[in-house]
Amino acid sequence: MEGRPLRGMRDYLGEEAILRSELLEKIKASFELFGFQPLETPALESWDVLSAKGAGGEEILEETYNFTDKAGRRIGLRYDLTVPLARVVASNPTLPLPYKRYQIGKVWRYGEVGKGRLREFTQCDIDIIGSEHMISDAEVITCAVHTLKNIGIDNFIVRLNNRKLLNSLVRLAGVPEEMTIDVLRAIDKIDKIELNGVIAELKKLDLTHNTLNSIVEFLKIRGKPSEVLTSAKDIVKGDKEGEEGVEELNKLLHNLKLMGSYEVITIDLSLARGLDYYTGPIFEFVALEGVGSITSGGRYDNLIKIFSGKQIPATGISLGLERIIEVLKETKEQKPKKTKTQTYIAATNDEVRDSVIEVATLLRQRGIKTDYDLKIRKLTRQLEYAASINVAYVIIVGKEELSRGAVKLRNMQTWEEKEVQIEQLHLYIK
Amino acid sequence: MEGRPLRGMRDYLGEEAILRSELLEKIKASFELFGFQPLETPALESWDVLSAKGAGGEEILEETYNFTDKAGRRIGLRYDLTVPLARVVASNPTLPLPYKRYQIGKVWRYGEVGKGRLREFTQCDIDIIGSEHMISDAEVITCAVHTLKNIGIDNFIVRLNNRKLLNSLVRLAGVPEEMTIDVLRAIDKIDKIELNGVIAELKKLDLTHNTLNSIVEFLKIRGKPSEVLTSAKDIVKGDKEGEEGVEELNKLLHNLKLMGSYEVITIDLSLARGLDYYTGPIFEFVALEGVGSITSGGRYDNLIKIFSGKQIPATGISLGLERIIEVLKETKEQKPKKTKTQTYIAATNDEVRDSVIEVATLLRQRGIKTDYDLKIRKLTRQLEYAASINVAYVIIVGKEELSRGAVKLRNMQTWEEKEVQIEQLHLYIK
Repeated sequence: MEGRPLRGMRDYLGEEAILRSELLEKIKASFELFGFQPLETPALESWDVLSAKGAGGEEILEETYNFTDKAGRRIGLRYDLTVPLARVVASNPTLPLPYKRYQIGKVWRYGEVGKGRLREFTQCDIDIIGSEHMISDAEVITCAVHTLKNIGIDNFIVRLNNRKLLNSLVRLAGVPEEMTIDVLRAIDKIDKIELNGVIAELKKLDLTHNTLNSIVEFLKIRGKPSEVLTSAKDIVKGDKEGEEGVEELNKLLHNLKLMGSYEVITIDLSLARGLDYYTGPIFEFVALEGVGSITSGGRYDNLIKIFSGKQIPATGISLGLERIIEVLKETKEQKPKKTKTQTYIAATNDEVRDSVIEVATLLRQRGIKTDYDLKIRKLTRQLEYAASINVAYVIIVGKEELSRGAVKLRNMQTWEEKEVQIEQLHLYIK
Repeated sequence: MEGRPLRGMRDYLGEEAILRSELLEKIKASFELFGFQPLETPALESWDVLSAKGAGGEEILEETYNFTDKAGRRIGLRYDLTVPLARVVASNPTLPLPYKRYQIGKVWRYGEVGKGRLREFTQCDIDIIGSEHMISDAEVITCAVHTLKNIGIDNFIVRLNNRKLLNSLVRLAGVPEEMTIDVLRAIDKIDKIELNGVIAELKKLDLTHNTLNSIVEFLKIRGKPSEVLTSAKDIVKGDKEGEEGVEELNKLLHNLKLMGSYEVITIDLSLARGLDYYTGPIFEFVALEGVGSITSGGRYDNLIKIFSGKQIPATGISLGLERIIEVLKETKEQKPKKTKTQTYIAATNDEVRDSVIEVATLLRQRGIKTDYDLKIRKLTRQLEYAASINVAYVIIVGKEELSRGAVKLRNMQTWEEKEVQIEQLHLYIK
């Protein structure tokens, strides 16, 4: 019998499970601090929903687990939490807007398996539906900044761009409309293949010399956000979509300043992002040590329309739990917890087993996370076990102390041991 | 475009999602209080694992979502959290035992859809692996009792029985071994069809008159746990398996007394439970108002052997989140929270929008869950919205108060309003 999980999927136990559980609690708390409300949607969706035109796109559908159910209906496992959200909003027309929701859940993609690339992974998403204002984009970015700092990731930058601006820059450079997507895809590879690689890719596309030069020129614009935007504004002057893009970014920067998250922002005209549905600001959080991109998102004002026929603006961001853990592993001196249990009660011999249970029951009633021996082992084995799981306190129950209504309490950090009345025990355990 | 989730699956938003999220937090806290550690396993498992002989059994496999992946491998969505646990234990031979884990997760079964019966639902499981002692069975029962009380369910009883005792009683009544399972299935229906119904079912099985009478006799035994066990002991006297069953129940009762959860226990010789893998004590928690069975479990000493070849004793219990919510709905005066947000900040006019953001940022830095208008609406619309989501406090930002470094704070319960310095604001919000 095969004991391992399926390829690209993982069991999490022990320290890893504790770390994941604690990170998810912190992420949830950060999301709620910013007024986002919980949402749960099913893991399975109808294929119609998953494959809606303008949603994930062909590339992602290739990787989507799908099959026919008993009723002959084609269904699949969700590949993200954004498309299900769009379905929910469309099917709840009385939902008060703006709707700020968070969702934390597994998603599945049957893709290549590699370091940090799994077939089942956890996304932590926040989205604001129904607000066209750049305050909302600033909210999701700031909430993500707060969340990452809250879990101990400080060393990152936020790359910011705008699809409108990008469309305009590419058009003004002379790229024919039908080639826009190819050019954006080439630009999007700049992280991996650098500017020279992008130039080589663009050359394959049969662009004119002037067009190529114009693109390279705007890709080279670097500097403070305000300087980059001033340069971009000059280029797109007179082009409505481009001016809108610049205007959106200016408003976004203004709000990010008010929210105190301006210092991590860079405007990066080479950020294009893969997914088809983005329409306005797009953003990507990059860890300066380790795995690179950890969080990304953007505005998608047309996605909900696909499901409801009604134009409803939306913006959001997604944090990948596994990527965050990669960054933490590479940058932090992790001292992972082996147990969440605070105290372990040991019996000196079998006569006091019942008393061990009574002490455990009392401590639990008082809110102390408590465990004790369930295998009727010798004292030395019990103490070995307690030490191996890094429990903070061990309580030793012996006949003599019991006769005085007491037990021994050992602090496993300091190795200090003292006799404590059972009734007082909970006061000594932190 | 179909906007609804798939049949038998649900979206949870608003109050429902908040209730679920808060219940899960409490359930998790109760599990950790008893020293259980988190485990996560994938939603998908290989068909070999799901269909292992002696695991779920034919009936449950009929309802299991399964398909062939791109590599031609048959896989399926898990139908419970116990079989994956057995796989994990088998594939981690160095895991220190006893292993006490909890797992909270979705499971999927393509069955009939009805009230309280969904195709995607949430199980909250605790199990103790590697201890044959009745302390462990008492631990899982007591932890479940604590968990239910912790979430406000008080009115329930625990039905207790033992597969060994049941096997023995049925055998001594004269049932041929090959018919044991059919007899147990008939007995298991007693909740739905009552004793007369069970008799009718048994009559169909072509049992002798004496056998039928003997079965009816032991099913009629009622009374205090100790009395029922004394009667049962008399019947099985001299039958090794039966005596073991009685002995296990006696030890279990002793430990439940020590743990303070004895008062909810009944011994019920008609409890049989469907799943094939139970080998010792079996238990079922029944709400006295509402949906009936809310929690169940038992000892399954042979399940892990299927995966590892090694006999490892195990016992556990499973709480169904959706059933718990049904009970809460029927028994409690629920006043569900519409939001987790503590305070909503309103702007008197557009001039003060930036200040609203600054106040929100300050409050969030101080840990107050805060929201504000993202749609640039008029003050009256903002206040309507704040009232509709049941937020506890509204902060009104106006130009005049701002000039004094202050805002208005309105308590939405008492309707009391006062001017508060922005720097002091967090001290007023509970």
